[in-house]
Amino acid sequence: MLIKKSPLAPSSFPNLPKVGGISMSSINCGIRKSKKPDLILVTMQEGTSAACTLTKSKMPSAPVNWCKKIRGYGRARALVVNSGNANAHTGEYGELTVKNTVNKIVDLIKCNKNEVYVASTGVIGEKLSSKLITDSITTIYKKGDSSWKEIASAIRTTDTFSKGASSSCKIDGKNIRIVGVAKGSGMVFPNMGTMLAFIFTDIEIPSFILSALLKQGVDKSFNSITVDGDTSTSDTCGLFATGVVNFKKPFSKITDKRLNIFSIALNKVLQNLARQIVCDGEGAKKLITINVRGAKSEKIARKIGLSVANSPLVKTAVAGEDGNWGRIVMAMGKAGISIPLKLLSISIGNIKVSEAGLVCNSYSETKLSKYMKNKEIQIDICIGKGDHSSIVWTCDLTHDYIRINADYRS
Amino acid sequence: MLIKKSPLAPSSFPNLPKVGGISMSSINCGIRKSKKPDLILVTMQEGTSAACTLTKSKMPSAPVNWCKKIRGYGRARALVVNSGNANAHTGEYGELTVKNTVNKIVDLIKCNKNEVYVASTGVIGEKLSSKLITDSITTIYKKGDSSWKEIASAIRTTDTFSKGASSSCKIDGKNIRIVGVAKGSGMVFPNMGTMLAFIFTDIEIPSFILSALLKQGVDKSFNSITVDGDTSTSDTCGLFATGVVNFKKPFSKITDKRLNIFSIALNKVLQNLARQIVCDGEGAKKLITINVRGAKSEKIARKIGLSVANSPLVKTAVAGEDGNWGRIVMAMGKAGISIPLKLLSISIGNIKVSEAGLVCNSYSETKLSKYMKNKEIQIDICIGKGDHSSIVWTCDLTHDYIRINADYRS
Repeated sequence: MLIKKSPLAPSSFPNLPKVGGISMSSINCGIRKSKKPDLILVTMQEGTSAACTLTKSKMPSAPVNWCKKIRGYGRARALVVNSGNANAHTGEYGELTVKNTVNKIVDLIKCNKNEVYVASTGVIGEKLSSKLITDSITTIYKKGDSSWKEIASAIRTTDTFSKGASSSCKIDGKNIRIVGVAKGSGMVFPNMGTMLAFIFTDIEIPSFILSALLKQGVDKSFNSITVDGDTSTSDTCGLFATGVVNFKKPFSKITDKRLNIFSIALNKVLQNLARQIVCDGEGAKKLITINVRGAKSEKIARKIGLSVANSPLVKTAVAGEDGNWGRIVMAMGKAGISIPLKLLSISIGNIKVSEAGLVCNSYSETKLSKYMKNKEIQIDICIGKGDHSSIVWTCDLTHDYIRINADYRS
Repeated sequence: MLIKKSPLAPSSFPNLPKVGGISMSSINCGIRKSKKPDLILVTMQEGTSAACTLTKSKMPSAPVNWCKKIRGYGRARALVVNSGNANAHTGEYGELTVKNTVNKIVDLIKCNKNEVYVASTGVIGEKLSSKLITDSITTIYKKGDSSWKEIASAIRTTDTFSKGASSSCKIDGKNIRIVGVAKGSGMVFPNMGTMLAFIFTDIEIPSFILSALLKQGVDKSFNSITVDGDTSTSDTCGLFATGVVNFKKPFSKITDKRLNIFSIALNKVLQNLARQIVCDGEGAKKLITINVRGAKSEKIARKIGLSVANSPLVKTAVAGEDGNWGRIVMAMGKAGISIPLKLLSISIGNIKVSEAGLVCNSYSETKLSKYMKNKEIQIDICIGKGDHSSIVWTCDLTHDYIRINADYRS
């Protein structure tokens, strides 16, 4: 099946800088029958800090179970990722594949096994041969550097384009680079959909601080997007800091004000990658941004936003360029949160459609229909007088979603 | 837009018997521009008991708010239902429409206003003129009896066929009839999707018992189906018992053993209507039955069943006749319930696909692919050694779902 590149894809893969302390390469190790690269190895210099968030699925893959076990150690020397097979629901066989992979790396680069991160993405329930991977580890290690574009491409499954992003910041006069790659297009829902994202930075920072910053950032990015409400067995977001750029006064407290600068730059990368995943949502033709304001907490705002973002009826209405805003009301209702109707207002684009619990007098369907033809649709919902807000991204639900998913494995 | 009759529709509308103590008719009152009937009035004899379950949406329609207010009274003399407009998110204007409708009925048949049930289904957010309804009430009242088929047809929106069902039972030598009509095809999710169902019986039974039986029955029927996971603003299930068939020893306790006989017959009607709604799921080509066994409670079993039933990836796989059972595992994982993998087994049809946390040795993809061509797909999941189980029904997710919902209002 030929899947065309998403119309929401960026015009080209961005130009991403090198990150000090990292070397990486990709290869085809034989998991995919095509010659497309399906395995990446990233090695990192000694002392690299690591943080990792993982799927909340109760049916996690073998690699997810492994990462859960080691992330408390807070250090990384290697990251191995394969596409084409999720190594999920593969029982003890799957655990063994991870174990063999990790042992091979430990032998090769002489690190602690708790420093080896593993992730897999692809079909669930099929056994993943560890031999395919271990036989290729030495080759891939010696192969030399691949580009970010090659790395981003090798971890793709149904993605129609490779996803990368970068940002930088300056702390104490020193430049810090942050580069990330990601994959994901369906089964994408907070906590987290079939998505992998790996972010690398050269800053020196202890892992407990890295973990806290990653958690905050993921809530505002990967946990604020949805394609189809399905949650994968395999999702992994890793953040690695090599420590090439270090400071006279090292970071030792989460309250260190310099961290705000880094956090803003990090969140830029996370949100950029998250938006790219939505833009590659299976069959997506339109990007939908939902902004919920006036809530008593960010959690409430996000819950309502996601309820709207996950509604197939809202998403098909957007696909049909139909300003059927009643479906937004319906979708808000199922979030289970009481909203004082007198304070509620809903706008699409700059067109206010509903206020105080009913349609606005000024509302013009013609105007809204015209707006719905845009490639980016903005929905603004104000639910009260609270100080909190949340932005959620999703895409429309089109024929191509059905086409892709009814035929994916065949 | 022409919507073809669902391939899962029954061959014809069933032959439904009269229910003593009820008179009913349908009419076009002008809400729909076509001449299709859009208003029904059912009047019931004095002393009719009533029970009612309603949507859990936090954005309920004006009629839902009204029914919430009166259902504690436990009596009914009239039921007014319109299609074409949901009277939802219409503010005080909507409340007034309900009030005027109720007052008109009270004047006409001299009943208590708490005995007048109102329901609306159709587009959300458009004002519903009370004049259209009140002007037609006298005409419709005098019109004389319509058939069950006409009643079921008048409450349809995007339904491709009219839904009715009946059953009977014998208590103390007396025959009892139960007849129900329903509508619903999209926005169908427990608690409850855009669905209306009205069930009429001639038994004499106090309303507190009727309420308890309805609640139990709805959990095993309308709360166990899903089309798209969306929840409507308007769902209403009313159960009315006219009391024409009475007993020397009236029902006075919920523990009366004779009630089991009635409950079984009632649940037959509820489940029959629920399955018909799924069979009319927007774009449905296949009926999916998910049976979850071995759970510690019915609630847990239903939660897992609904998580699978609500997964777009499972539903598109079934649409594509693809036995991609890994998606069932994924969907179970997102239910948030820990399952001991050693005890887990999954079968599709009679083909066991997974046992003890990985694929079965005996599993044959060829055999499964052949099974997937059936019109009814059965998924059996055993999650442990518990005594509880739940059956959930859904349909596949096809191109026609998108076609219908991207164009519904236009």
